[in-house]
Amino acid sequence: MAEKSQKFSGVLSPVLTPFSKDLKPESRRLVEHCRWLLSQNVALVLFGTTSEANSLSLEEKISLLDDLIDAGINPSLLMPGTGCCSITETVQLTSHAVKLGCKGALILPPFYYKDISDDGLFRSYAETIERVGNSALNIYLYHIPPVSGVSISLDLIERLIIRYPNVIAGIKDSSGNWKNTQSILERRWDDFQVFAGSERFLLQTMRAGGVGCISATANINPNAIYNLYKDWKINQADNLQKQLNQVRTILESYPMIPALKSVVSYYSNHPDWTMVRPPFISLEKETQKELIQKLKSLGFAMPNLD
Amino acid sequence: MAEKSQKFSGVLSPVLTPFSKDLKPESRRLVEHCRWLLSQNVALVLFGTTSEANSLSLEEKISLLDDLIDAGINPSLLMPGTGCCSITETVQLTSHAVKLGCKGALILPPFYYKDISDDGLFRSYAETIERVGNSALNIYLYHIPPVSGVSISLDLIERLIIRYPNVIAGIKDSSGNWKNTQSILERRWDDFQVFAGSERFLLQTMRAGGVGCISATANINPNAIYNLYKDWKINQADNLQKQLNQVRTILESYPMIPALKSVVSYYSNHPDWTMVRPPFISLEKETQKELIQKLKSLGFAMPNLD
Repeated sequence: MAEKSQKFSGVLSPVLTPFSKDLKPESRRLVEHCRWLLSQNVALVLFGTTSEANSLSLEEKISLLDDLIDAGINPSLLMPGTGCCSITETVQLTSHAVKLGCKGALILPPFYYKDISDDGLFRSYAETIERVGNSALNIYLYHIPPVSGVSISLDLIERLIIRYPNVIAGIKDSSGNWKNTQSILERRWDDFQVFAGSERFLLQTMRAGGVGCISATANINPNAIYNLYKDWKINQADNLQKQLNQVRTILESYPMIPALKSVVSYYSNHPDWTMVRPPFISLEKETQKELIQKLKSLGFAMPNLD
Repeated sequence: MAEKSQKFSGVLSPVLTPFSKDLKPESRRLVEHCRWLLSQNVALVLFGTTSEANSLSLEEKISLLDDLIDAGINPSLLMPGTGCCSITETVQLTSHAVKLGCKGALILPPFYYKDISDDGLFRSYAETIERVGNSALNIYLYHIPPVSGVSISLDLIERLIIRYPNVIAGIKDSSGNWKNTQSILERRWDDFQVFAGSERFLLQTMRAGGVGCISATANINPNAIYNLYKDWKINQADNLQKQLNQVRTILESYPMIPALKSVVSYYSNHPDWTMVRPPFISLEKETQKELIQKLKSLGFAMPNLD
């Protein structure tokens, strides 16, 4: 198991996906954004919710992942989201990611059908693991019921850990419910890594034995989030958390993905960064200005982006 | 617009997708089931919710659709479900279906992201229509919020009809909420065809100006549902509706898709028909027996299936 001793910890950004005016993914700009994020001390969740991953086809995802590796992005810093609706696509994308050397895969449960039993979800993850059939696979479970509509229960996590102890590596808890994260952490499963799904819970998560966060806003505020991760034991940690929350609160008062893209567009001076695929809509110019103004009033900036 | 005057009406079955033991779709058995359904007076929604459509990859869907056409199934009796999470896949599958001559396409809104505005959903359908760019396209909107988690509002329908009067052909209302179907029917949009999402609402729908139903249980009880459609004006119609409801109530007390597949498996004498993809689980043998027993006690049968 030597190759699996190094797991992820710290801060990861679910990388925004840049589109051209005609809504094609642009890998050159994606690579640039990834490089900038890495320079700001965060690792990369390609194809997270914030990446508009589920507005991309399987083919587009595979192609973008290939482009990133070809551009020299280190796969040991990559945790792509590979959970699709269909088992065939989940297996294909996960296998591809593992073969490219990605250190982990963040896997949603199949999310179309609802009221699914734990038995059914267990079967889904088990079938994925068996079909990928690669001992290098590290799965991070992706619990985001407000969006996916499908919950990953504590019982299910435990069943998966017991059956696949060398594959089930951790979880991203994007329930938005601290009690759920706390309950997971209290189980103290051996070597099971718990990431907060938002930096709002980063300090609490670290204090309770978690390993970091994977957060949408890490696309624009990565280094500040990283600093709290690094310094969570210092006296001023609560103050750092408050500062992060101020930025996050502003973002949360807008549709998150269009808002983040507006901010990147502004600081990178690239108008196409505002492009979002349907069902999203770009922020109006005036709304974008207002958002930037609010962020600047906190002293916010994105350094060295362009 | 001559080629578009014939729209769907009557009863359509969201066709169950047969899998082999290793969960591959089996087009030969699919063709057989489609032929049987057609012989029972129902048309075909390939890739509906009941078809486990969202457990199939795009590639698998295209291949199955091709196999059906190659086998001689008349595309004017086909309304495939072509709404995927990503606009690229929705456009690809819809274009393919229209080119093959399918008379309609049943289109889900993109269903991963939630709390989407009507503007965003309008943009999604509009972009699909523009990109498919084929005047033969007939879209049936697929409203199934209990599963998709994304609602198609009356305002959105009206905006789409006004903007694309020759494309927006109708709706399948699977809200399970009669008041919603009634509200749609009361708008009396010109030539807009309203299908109940369950035969439970068939008689009400017909009496209020609808054109039929698209229902899961039409996979096993097609002709009886068709008879109510055909004879909805007769005195005994309420009685026919009650008989349909009795069958449906039994089915609804089990997980619907595994239950329907169990019934088809029993009457076609083909054990592989019980196979479901994750996240579903096949019914236990004992449960299957119990289900069949309950149906038989109503005098239920599937004639000429094997």
